[in-house]
Amino acid sequence: MPIPSVMKAVVGRAGVVTVEEHPTPTPGSGQVLVRSLACGICGSDLHMVHHYDEIFSQPRPGDPLPGDPDADNGVLLGHELAGEVVAHGPGTGSVPLGARVASVPFVTVDGDRRQGVGTSRRVHGALSEYFLLDEANLIVVPDHLTTESIALAEPLAVAIHALERGAVTSDDTALVVGCGAIGLATIAALRMRGVKTIIASDPVAHRRSMATSFGATNTIDPLADDEFVALDGASEPNRAVVLECAGVTSLLRPMIERAPGSTRIVVVGVHTDELTFSPAMAMRKELDLRFTFYYSSENYAEAIEWLSAGSVDLAPLVTATVGVDGVDEAIQTLSGPNDHIKIIVEPWREGGLSTTS
Amino acid sequence: MPIPSVMKAVVGRAGVVTVEEHPTPTPGSGQVLVRSLACGICGSDLHMVHHYDEIFSQPRPGDPLPGDPDADNGVLLGHELAGEVVAHGPGTGSVPLGARVASVPFVTVDGDRRQGVGTSRRVHGALSEYFLLDEANLIVVPDHLTTESIALAEPLAVAIHALERGAVTSDDTALVVGCGAIGLATIAALRMRGVKTIIASDPVAHRRSMATSFGATNTIDPLADDEFVALDGASEPNRAVVLECAGVTSLLRPMIERAPGSTRIVVVGVHTDELTFSPAMAMRKELDLRFTFYYSSENYAEAIEWLSAGSVDLAPLVTATVGVDGVDEAIQTLSGPNDHIKIIVEPWREGGLSTTS
Repeated sequence: MPIPSVMKAVVGRAGVVTVEEHPTPTPGSGQVLVRSLACGICGSDLHMVHHYDEIFSQPRPGDPLPGDPDADNGVLLGHELAGEVVAHGPGTGSVPLGARVASVPFVTVDGDRRQGVGTSRRVHGALSEYFLLDEANLIVVPDHLTTESIALAEPLAVAIHALERGAVTSDDTALVVGCGAIGLATIAALRMRGVKTIIASDPVAHRRSMATSFGATNTIDPLADDEFVALDGASEPNRAVVLECAGVTSLLRPMIERAPGSTRIVVVGVHTDELTFSPAMAMRKELDLRFTFYYSSENYAEAIEWLSAGSVDLAPLVTATVGVDGVDEAIQTLSGPNDHIKIIVEPWREGGLSTTS
Repeated sequence: MPIPSVMKAVVGRAGVVTVEEHPTPTPGSGQVLVRSLACGICGSDLHMVHHYDEIFSQPRPGDPLPGDPDADNGVLLGHELAGEVVAHGPGTGSVPLGARVASVPFVTVDGDRRQGVGTSRRVHGALSEYFLLDEANLIVVPDHLTTESIALAEPLAVAIHALERGAVTSDDTALVVGCGAIGLATIAALRMRGVKTIIASDPVAHRRSMATSFGATNTIDPLADDEFVALDGASEPNRAVVLECAGVTSLLRPMIERAPGSTRIVVVGVHTDELTFSPAMAMRKELDLRFTFYYSSENYAEAIEWLSAGSVDLAPLVTATVGVDGVDEAIQTLSGPNDHIKIIVEPWREGGLSTTS
C-alpha cells in the first residue's frame, strides 16, 4: 500500500475532538513510520480532552512554547497502540516492513528527547493513520495475536506496573476499586501473580460479573456493602493492598479513612481534583499512598508475553469498535453514563461506533 | 527503697499539665512495677496536650468510655522511658529487682489488651514516679549506658522504623526535613545504614551544626536555599527519599510539589491539620507517601544495641533536665519558640528546668 502524503489525525483540545488532515510524518534517525492498526480509547484520553487547558498549561519537557508553530497543535491522541511498520528512517531496518508491532508509547525526537506518543502536541499518536516510533522499542508480535490484543497490552502494562508499585505478593489480599478496563486488567494481573483473595468493587452489576470472569474471588457493590470491612476481614495483618482504579478523587479520602492498618493504597486512576485528608489518620494506620504513572518497558513486554501466551485474554473488554471519523462520538459517549468498557479505534477505516456482541 | 503507697503522676488535659497524687499501681499477672529513672518529653506529648480533645474524642481500643471512672483521668504522659524494676507481679521474676530496664512503651491490661504507656488514660506513663510494664518486653541494659541514653532509645527506634518504612538503602540520597530530636536521630540512623549523602534542612543554624555532627553531609537553611533542588542534584534517578521530621503540615504540600520523580516521602512528624494536594502531581512523579507510627520491638532493640555499643551517642540532644514539678514549665517552654532539642524529666527528683552545658 503506498503511503499517502496526507493522513487523518485525531486532535484533542479543550472539550473538543476533531479529525484533521496532516502531512504524513517522515521517520528520522532511529525511527520507523508505523501504520496504525488499532488503538484503544483510554480514560486518560478523556482527561486530556476535558482538562486540556489545565494539563497543557503546565509545560513539560519538549512541549512547544507559546508562540511556537506547534503551540496550537492540540494533543495528538492515541497511546494504546498496535501498528505495522511501513517505512524505515536512517539507521533502521532490523524490523522488516510489514511487521506487526507493539511498543511503549514513546518516541525520541531531537536526538535525545522522549515524547509521549498519544499524549503530546509535537508527535502523532496512534489515533492518526500513521505515526512514528523508535525501532529500538518495537516488539514484533506473533501472527496469532489480534491487533485488538496488541492495543490492550497497554492497560495490562499499567496493571502490571501498579502491582510492582504496590509490591504485591501472593500473600496479599487485594481490593480493586473500580472495574473498568484498568480495574479488570489489574484483576487479571493479580490472578497471574497468584494472589489468592481478590475483592472487586464496582456499583455496576455487569462489571462485577466481568470481574469474576477475570479472576476476582469476591465482588462487592459499594452502594450496598462495605468493601473495606470485607478487605479487613479477609486479609492477614499488614497484607492488605488497595488498587484504586476508578479515577474518582472523592473516593480517596474515605479510602484513607476506612482502609485497615498498614494498607498500601496504590493510586492507579487519573485524578484532576485536589485531595484533602488527615495525615494523623494515615499515620495511626501507617498507610502508604503510592502513585503510579505509565510502566516500564519490562512491564509492557511482560504484558505482550502474557497476551501472546494466551495466559491473559483481554478481548472481552472490547465493547465497540469505531473508525477514525467516529472518535469524537466515542469520546462523547464515554464521557457520560455508558456501558462500555473499552472502545477500539481502527484509524484505517471510516465509520461510527459499532458495538461488539 | 520502700515503695510509697502514693506517687506523683504527670497528667495532660486540653492545654494543661498537672502533677497529681495517685495511688502507686500494683503489678498484675505478667507485669512488673518500675520506678521511673528518666523520661524524655516528645513532640507528641505536646500534641496530646494541645490537641487533647481532638485526639481523645476518637475512642481507641481500651479507652475509658464517657461515664467510666477513668474517663476524666487525662492522659498519663511519658513514653520515652528508662526504669528500675522494683516489684514483681504474679508469674514474673526472671528480671531481678534493681535491674535497669528499657521497654517498648506498651503494657498488657485485662489479659490481652495492649495499652500505650505514656499515651493512654488508663495506665501510668513514665512521667509518673512508678508505672507498669510487661516483664516479657523488658531489656536489661548494661551498666555503662546512662539512664538518659535509655530514654533516648525511643526516638532512635522511631528513626530506625522510619528508614524501614521508607525501604532506605545505602544507595539512596536522603533529605531530612527538620532537625529536632527525631530529625537528628534519623540522621544518626541514616549514617548507621551507610547512606552516603544525607542532606539536612532546618532554619536554625545551631540545629544544622548538630545535624553535621550526627552525620549530615550537607545542610541547608530552607529560608535561604532550596533543599529539593539540592536533593534532585545529589540523587540518582529513583533513589531520593525525604524524611519529614518537622511535624509541620504546611510543609507537606510543597514537599509533594517540589520532590524529584519517584521520591519516597516518609512522614515521621505528627500532624493534626488536614493536608490538601493534587494527586495528579503525585501521580506524574510516581511519589510515595508513607506514614509512620511507633516502631517494632526489633527496631527498639536495635536502638538499644546501637546505644549500648556506643555506635550512636544521642546524649548531645539533651539540652535540659527537670524534676517532676517542672514538667508543666518544660512543656510550656517547648510549646513556644525555644532552643531546646530534648528535655529529660527525672521524675524521682524535685526541681525546675536545669539547662545542660
